[in-house]
Amino acid sequence: MKKVAIVGGTGYTGVELLRILARHPEVKVSAITSRSEAGRQVSDIYPSLRGEFDLAFSEPNNEILSQADLVFFATPNGVAMQQARVLLDAGTKVVDLAADFRLQDIDVWSHWYGMEHACADLVEEAVYGLPEVNRQAITKARLVANPGCYPTAVQIGLLPLLEQGLINRQHIIADCKSGVSGAGRGAAVGSLLCEAGDSFKAYGVAGHRHLPEIKERLAIASGAPIGLTFVPHLTPMIRGIHATIYAQAQDAIDLHSLQAAYEARYANHGFVDVMPLGSHPETRSVRGSNICRVALHQPQGEDTLVILSAIDNLVKGAAGQAVHNMNLMLGLAENAGLDIMPLSP
Amino acid sequence: MKKVAIVGGTGYTGVELLRILARHPEVKVSAITSRSEAGRQVSDIYPSLRGEFDLAFSEPNNEILSQADLVFFATPNGVAMQQARVLLDAGTKVVDLAADFRLQDIDVWSHWYGMEHACADLVEEAVYGLPEVNRQAITKARLVANPGCYPTAVQIGLLPLLEQGLINRQHIIADCKSGVSGAGRGAAVGSLLCEAGDSFKAYGVAGHRHLPEIKERLAIASGAPIGLTFVPHLTPMIRGIHATIYAQAQDAIDLHSLQAAYEARYANHGFVDVMPLGSHPETRSVRGSNICRVALHQPQGEDTLVILSAIDNLVKGAAGQAVHNMNLMLGLAENAGLDIMPLSP
Amino acid sequence: MKKVAIVGGTGYTGVELLRILARHPEVKVSAITSRSEAGRQVSDIYPSLRGEFDLAFSEPNNEILSQADLVFFATPNGVAMQQARVLLDAGTKVVDLAADFRLQDIDVWSHWYGMEHACADLVEEAVYGLPEVNRQAITKARLVANPGCYPTAVQIGLLPLLEQGLINRQHIIADCKSGVSGAGRGAAVGSLLCEAGDSFKAYGVAGHRHLPEIKERLAIASGAPIGLTFVPHLTPMIRGIHATIYAQAQDAIDLHSLQAAYEARYANHGFVDVMPLGSHPETRSVRGSNICRVALHQPQGEDTLVILSAIDNLVKGAAGQAVHNMNLMLGLAENAGLDIMPLSP
Amino acid sequence: MKKVAIVGGTGYTGVELLRILARHPEVKVSAITSRSEAGRQVSDIYPSLRGEFDLAFSEPNNEILSQADLVFFATPNGVAMQQARVLLDAGTKVVDLAADFRLQDIDVWSHWYGMEHACADLVEEAVYGLPEVNRQAITKARLVANPGCYPTAVQIGLLPLLEQGLINRQHIIADCKSGVSGAGRGAAVGSLLCEAGDSFKAYGVAGHRHLPEIKERLAIASGAPIGLTFVPHLTPMIRGIHATIYAQAQDAIDLHSLQAAYEARYANHGFVDVMPLGSHPETRSVRGSNICRVALHQPQGEDTLVILSAIDNLVKGAAGQAVHNMNLMLGLAENAGLDIMPLSP
Repeated sequence: MKKVAIVGGTGYTGVELLRILARHPEVKVSAITSRSEAGRQVSDIYPSLRGEFDLAFSEPNNEILSQADLVFFATPNGVAMQQARVLLDAGTKVVDLAADFRLQDIDVWSHWYGMEHACADLVEEAVYGLPEVNRQAITKARLVANPGCYPTAVQIGLLPLLEQGLINRQHIIADCKSGVSGAGRGAAVGSLLCEAGDSFKAYGVAGHRHLPEIKERLAIASGAPIGLTFVPHLTPMIRGIHATIYAQAQDAIDLHSLQAAYEARYANHGFVDVMPLGSHPETRSVRGSNICRVALHQPQGEDTLVILSAIDNLVKGAAGQAVHNMNLMLGLAENAGLDIMPLSP
Repeated sequence: MKKVAIVGGTGYTGVELLRILARHPEVKVSAITSRSEAGRQVSDIYPSLRGEFDLAFSEPNNEILSQADLVFFATPNGVAMQQARVLLDAGTKVVDLAADFRLQDIDVWSHWYGMEHACADLVEEAVYGLPEVNRQAITKARLVANPGCYPTAVQIGLLPLLEQGLINRQHIIADCKSGVSGAGRGAAVGSLLCEAGDSFKAYGVAGHRHLPEIKERLAIASGAPIGLTFVPHLTPMIRGIHATIYAQAQDAIDLHSLQAAYEARYANHGFVDVMPLGSHPETRSVRGSNICRVALHQPQGEDTLVILSAIDNLVKGAAGQAVHNMNLMLGLAENAGLDIMPLSP
Repeated sequence: MKKVAIVGGTGYTGVELLRILARHPEVKVSAITSRSEAGRQVSDIYPSLRGEFDLAFSEPNNEILSQADLVFFATPNGVAMQQARVLLDAGTKVVDLAADFRLQDIDVWSHWYGMEHACADLVEEAVYGLPEVNRQAITKARLVANPGCYPTAVQIGLLPLLEQGLINRQHIIADCKSGVSGAGRGAAVGSLLCEAGDSFKAYGVAGHRHLPEIKERLAIASGAPIGLTFVPHLTPMIRGIHATIYAQAQDAIDLHSLQAAYEARYANHGFVDVMPLGSHPETRSVRGSNICRVALHQPQGEDTLVILSAIDNLVKGAAGQAVHNMNLMLGLAENAGLDIMPLSP
Repeated sequence: MKKVAIVGGTGYTGVELLRILARHPEVKVSAITSRSEAGRQVSDIYPSLRGEFDLAFSEPNNEILSQADLVFFATPNGVAMQQARVLLDAGTKVVDLAADFRLQDIDVWSHWYGMEHACADLVEEAVYGLPEVNRQAITKARLVANPGCYPTAVQIGLLPLLEQGLINRQHIIADCKSGVSGAGRGAAVGSLLCEAGDSFKAYGVAGHRHLPEIKERLAIASGAPIGLTFVPHLTPMIRGIHATIYAQAQDAIDLHSLQAAYEARYANHGFVDVMPLGSHPETRSVRGSNICRVALHQPQGEDTLVILSAIDNLVKGAAGQAVHNMNLMLGLAENAGLDIMPLSP
């Protein structure tokens, strides 16, 4: 059994890591830290975990953490970059579920996250943890930047088009809708049931931190900068992200060939499900699972392609993908612990 | 007091008409018909109306209906076109909340609605009931086609841009999200709480009946055909439509001028609220009211404009707009009975 | 026009007062205070009020407040008791929507609310603002304690039984379910959509502050102490309280006579709707309105009576009842401004 | 690998059986029948199952069904009693998730279910499948009646009290709240998101089919008839049942002893979690899992005990318990396939 630890385990990505790791056949959670909840049993805060872990939150302690084979940072932005080096130096691998290592361009990172970066060299070393792109590199990585939730859904939807140069790179639109858990477990007025319930709105239209991440990674995939309008929306549900992506076909498109191209692109990636042409993936069809379902459309046969992409933001968009990365980094079976059925209805 | 009647009053637009008309100062509901519920008191089916109406559903009867000054058709598509002529001949005005008179192009109508049209001449006579465009014509109309819910939200969001030729007409995108009440009160599996709840999906990407309506009206507004990709989505909430509209600016745009242009365009239209630049209208901020809130964005200062438009699909998107049209047709104060506060939270 | 002011207007009862007062024909809101939001326009925080009030939040100021005919306290417990006297002395009437004046027994109050009471004499003077019991006294009152939401629903359901001595007073059970808005607009983890959504739980079984309030008022109604088990539950909805009340019939009950007794008891109280025997009131049937709907059951004809009582916790359970009290205190028509249709669906 | 088949697999209990059996280590689904959907792939109707089953719905066929080791009936009431005998005669075991074999008293059954029973002798043979009561008998059974969802939650909450004669048997109250999936996947107006969403109501107060089931089983447990008032409510959530049970203590109760008694009673039953005194189980803490969480309260130290019991109605209340019964009947590990983590949030 490998030993893993979680730093900052009181939020939704923390409890989701615990939910998944509780049934992982080859991994044991050796420590979970939280300054605010130190000393409390995990199951006191999360009754859904009762009987699963005999584990209390502890103060962060690098000595203890570095005894683990791998440490997950489920912390706010800016924490992992302060702590990663000492763990890496001790031979412990790191997966950061926050944004500290997601952007290669440090200046862009500082601009969007409003702080200086603490370790530019580690950014350079870090591997962007989207296994559908970087599986091999992740296998060899010490430090993985787990992708953002929106970026995961959008990239999986767009990669085949951009990798093959099939669309106009300048005017891509990603209209994305997220469940409220994307805002985390922090006590914020905007996330109250009475504020976010039975209502719908856009937010961050002027600029959202996932925009530069998507642009950087898609530019890498397409070999040239891309133009993207990204509008996130808040949907009155708990889990799920649905991306509706609009792209102008470069030339005449044969939709059946495109479907075949998507199927081929992801044939070797078991967590991506390319649905039959004309499908409409529902977020509930991936609820609780690590699956991304994608469907292609060409409305009225015109030159605007519409790609639909649905994930569970807490699983494929966070904790599940982190465990996927862990499996690769520790040499375990790729889907170990992730063979979870979606919960529907 | 004017007398009005409702044909087909058991659905959500029917009960919404009753909710609004119950407090209308100058109108009395003289009859409400329903074949399936004939004989039952309105308040038996809708306890929210207890004490408000001493009215039972009756069999449709043109003699009784034609005693009203105006008849609302809250019926499935294809009903009003069979019954409107006899009422009009009797001097009764008609507002159809269904789609029978929404499209001027009869062939397009037949294609999308899958039936022959029963009265092409009335289509020609009918006025499209979007008061923000046709207020004067509605005032003089005998027959008004109440707009669809999506078309209302999209048109109000786009009209100033198209009327003034500010955007590329060829690649407009309307990514729209609707509450489940848009699907009506019919017992359909897809509208069950356990199917539509806590989940999000697109539907009808290949083609939705509101597409030709939007295209026809926007073409009229802009004086030339437009290219539109329209993707509707189902959101786990009861009421509300949120349209996120993407358009390419024709030339350099000064967003403050554009804001001023929107404010001027709607200055004389009390049910449209142009919010301050950078706003994010929530559907709950119009819940139960006849208001459409609009906000403009130009993300990152690039050439893609984003217009947000929010309505209550049952009010401004259906029954409220119908009462607005009625007020104009009967010479009443434009906002009589519609001065309803949004219910938030 | 009468002038009213609101102290502490940023919570849900505050905005609900504004929603109702915006359409009140005889009252004008002259001031609304909030330390935290002083200087901000009301409509900046509540977009649903855009265009309705040209009013900014101000610092609390007794000079300004005392110019009003009546002041509403929509503040946390413990505030009104500090400020009421100076306003009363200045001739301004006061309705407290919090709990400061709800309990006649000061010791019980201190026990449950965890603080010393600041003005026992005013407690004695204060009238408990349940118009279905104290209409006359309210009319003459300077100071009214607006009832709690649960106590309103439970009392209206039980009053006829207790006033007429028809049930065993010792083992009454009130199993109550509330929407999340009952917890207020404070940023609390337990009120997040992701915590309270799609889930159900009891809370405060050991003791809830509304228990002594219900017991004290029901004891007054029945002329003797009562025994009550009160269990509140949190329901994943925004508005609404549903009380399911269980009582043992003292003697053989004729349900039709009981129905008649309820109808007679409330015949003169327009906001109570005694539904036909066998009805099941839904909270949505009163959403946004000041109505309490009540229905009686005697399952299997046995000696346990079941009374169902439904209100909107923010209206009949808070702001609506406060306006009702205001109307009585200022000599206005009892239902002025409260003739609001429920919003359903 | 054992072979099992499902009759009537298109409803929520059917898909839930498939979700669980997809990960069952020792069982393979050999057939799933549906007259209405015969020929369609299971994953066409349930996209959440894509990639899991290469299985199409088939016409019911006893020859095929009887090749299975065990058949689940996830059919409407009245179907299993027509088909069970032929399967049993062929040596196939049967678990009925409907009500055909739940009541030992045939007359009571006929009264509540409105039909004659087809096979009284099989009713006598059938074992009531609540493993917390009948584990041994289930192990030897050919035919198991899977309990109703409400009866499961209520019995687990009450059994220790009744078995030990600690409460007054005459005035037990079970105030129960269910998610909407309890009403099934049938297209019924009352289950629409716009009818059941954001609202709360009681239903069936006059009498619900689960009442005689609970009474019969509790009478057996206590050795004498019991008096029960059972009021079910509809809660705006998808999954979950929460029972709030009120009982009068026979004598002075020591709550800590009672807690110990509950813990002892269920020590050997891994799917029952007796939470610490004072806990409030949330339905989401068991979402998707086969766990029943129970908590004890004695409000104000008075003689009314309050027991809270929460299950997932589709799992412990239906498909999970059915698989539990199957495991016992087929000699498999009791928790095989049921070691599912709750999905929270």
